[in-house]
Amino acid sequence: MVKIQEFQQIINELIESQDFKKSPSELYEPICYVMSQEGKRLRPLLTLLACDLFDGDIQKALYPAMAIEVFHNFTLVHDDIMDNAPLRRGKETVYKKWNSNIAILAGDTMFAMAYQYAVKTDPELISEILGVFSQAAIEVCEGQQLDMNFENIEQVTIDDYLNMIRLKTAVLLGASLKIGAIAAKADIQSVKDIYEFGIHLGIAFQLKDDLLDAFGNEQKFGKKSGGDIVANKKTYLYLKARELANQQQADELSLLYKSQPEDPAEKIFKVKEIFNLYGIEGYVLNVMEEYYEKSLGFLDAVNADKGKKDALRTFAAQLYHRVH
Amino acid sequence: MVKIQEFQQIINELIESQDFKKSPSELYEPICYVMSQEGKRLRPLLTLLACDLFDGDIQKALYPAMAIEVFHNFTLVHDDIMDNAPLRRGKETVYKKWNSNIAILAGDTMFAMAYQYAVKTDPELISEILGVFSQAAIEVCEGQQLDMNFENIEQVTIDDYLNMIRLKTAVLLGASLKIGAIAAKADIQSVKDIYEFGIHLGIAFQLKDDLLDAFGNEQKFGKKSGGDIVANKKTYLYLKARELANQQQADELSLLYKSQPEDPAEKIFKVKEIFNLYGIEGYVLNVMEEYYEKSLGFLDAVNADKGKKDALRTFAAQLYHRVH
Repeated sequence: MVKIQEFQQIINELIESQDFKKSPSELYEPICYVMSQEGKRLRPLLTLLACDLFDGDIQKALYPAMAIEVFHNFTLVHDDIMDNAPLRRGKETVYKKWNSNIAILAGDTMFAMAYQYAVKTDPELISEILGVFSQAAIEVCEGQQLDMNFENIEQVTIDDYLNMIRLKTAVLLGASLKIGAIAAKADIQSVKDIYEFGIHLGIAFQLKDDLLDAFGNEQKFGKKSGGDIVANKKTYLYLKARELANQQQADELSLLYKSQPEDPAEKIFKVKEIFNLYGIEGYVLNVMEEYYEKSLGFLDAVNADKGKKDALRTFAAQLYHRVH
Repeated sequence: MVKIQEFQQIINELIESQDFKKSPSELYEPICYVMSQEGKRLRPLLTLLACDLFDGDIQKALYPAMAIEVFHNFTLVHDDIMDNAPLRRGKETVYKKWNSNIAILAGDTMFAMAYQYAVKTDPELISEILGVFSQAAIEVCEGQQLDMNFENIEQVTIDDYLNMIRLKTAVLLGASLKIGAIAAKADIQSVKDIYEFGIHLGIAFQLKDDLLDAFGNEQKFGKKSGGDIVANKKTYLYLKARELANQQQADELSLLYKSQPEDPAEKIFKVKEIFNLYGIEGYVLNVMEEYYEKSLGFLDAVNADKGKKDALRTFAAQLYHRVH
């Protein structure tokens, strides 16, 4: 716990010390706006924790960690355009507050900035770190594309969905850890194991997100529940319900997922009624636990000090048990 | 000339040998589409010519050159969204052929791919090459932002304009040369000189583009002339005319540049009439020549074999004298 707080502080201070206020202001103001919003900043934390796990020098992982956070924020700026999302972290999104063109360009600039940070490390590490970073960046784009595809495809399987969230969400958590491990010069097998820890934890994390979106306490979760239902997102919940439902209810679900009512309350209620009828929450909890347990198995396999693994174990538990 | 053709062939073959056909096809088809269009591919050619100028090993510059070409194409994909441009190189733009979301995401993916190429060189060169590459990428974004700003600003000066085209166009030509020189381990002063050669040539290149857009032979130039006038682009031509015109004609020009008639023929005619009245073509030719001569001065200053400079001199002359 002490490690987590210490590293969080280091990351926050590094981000706050950056000078994003450059010219032209039309380009950099949105970047300041995004980077000054305190998100969870989970990814750079994972990088530092992984570096520390293998007794690495945190300084070598610090800017690559920053790169990952800037990259992650860039993806949100572009995703919000694609998803027409008006709000993010309770604030107006960049494309909404300014416009799409500025959001495209500010995002592009952040992507280039991320690479500027990524190379600020031991020169002999740069090639490997950038390889992981670019590969993850491409896979995140592939995941976003699949997510968009699913809006127009009727037959999405649960495996398709799990693959999509692996790419869109889990890969970057895996890469964050992997880059920290590389910075610490961990052995090859441990680098693989810590990556798989991140992949499996990331999938559990996204499933939890889906669950909280439908069944979370609105006040604790910080946003209206049912957002995925309103947006007709084919999440694990929906796909499992479609799989289990009888013909009539499967048809009803499909129909509800084609509607976009002005007041979505009734739609949300009806969909959740079907979810409840088939005990979908339980199914999600089960598959989530499966991924969570697998992730811990990979962490166990890592060749590192048992005590030091506790920080990552605590981190994983916090993600797993979070209520928002 | 032989060198130019030889290097062009190497670049074309490298691009054609890449496998851009990956999954999901919705993401990679637009990338194949863009990369298979044979543009001028000037930038990777500059990288190879600069590397060769300093007796470098072309193999070390080849993938960084590819990176620059992929990056350049990515910027076109995003610029075309921002500019609502339906056509590029005589073909539908990505955003028009598919949609904005796909164009955003395909562009982002290309940007990450560019970095994957950029690191495929001598490990000890990576840090310096990426530094130049990322800095240029950011400056290109700044230039695009300034270009968008100018649409809404009444008082744009000629210096503002020259600074904008330096960032938007010239910097990447300069960086292409600089990266080639770095790959060849040229001395620091020569790296600076070859960069400035590119900057000045790039500004001359853009001024030529502006000139061809207004006064070029439509058939040779390959697109309708007057496109910048229709789009109310505050080019050097417009700004110089505003500077020289009397009050009445300056007002008329301003008014014309606020209009967007269905049939732009009359608008183009009237604007060009004012341009002709003040001999604007001559002014542009003069300032162009000034930048061109300066660029050659920097090439002269470069510490390299005089004979080898001829390839770059030929390249510059071709750009300067081109009619399309």
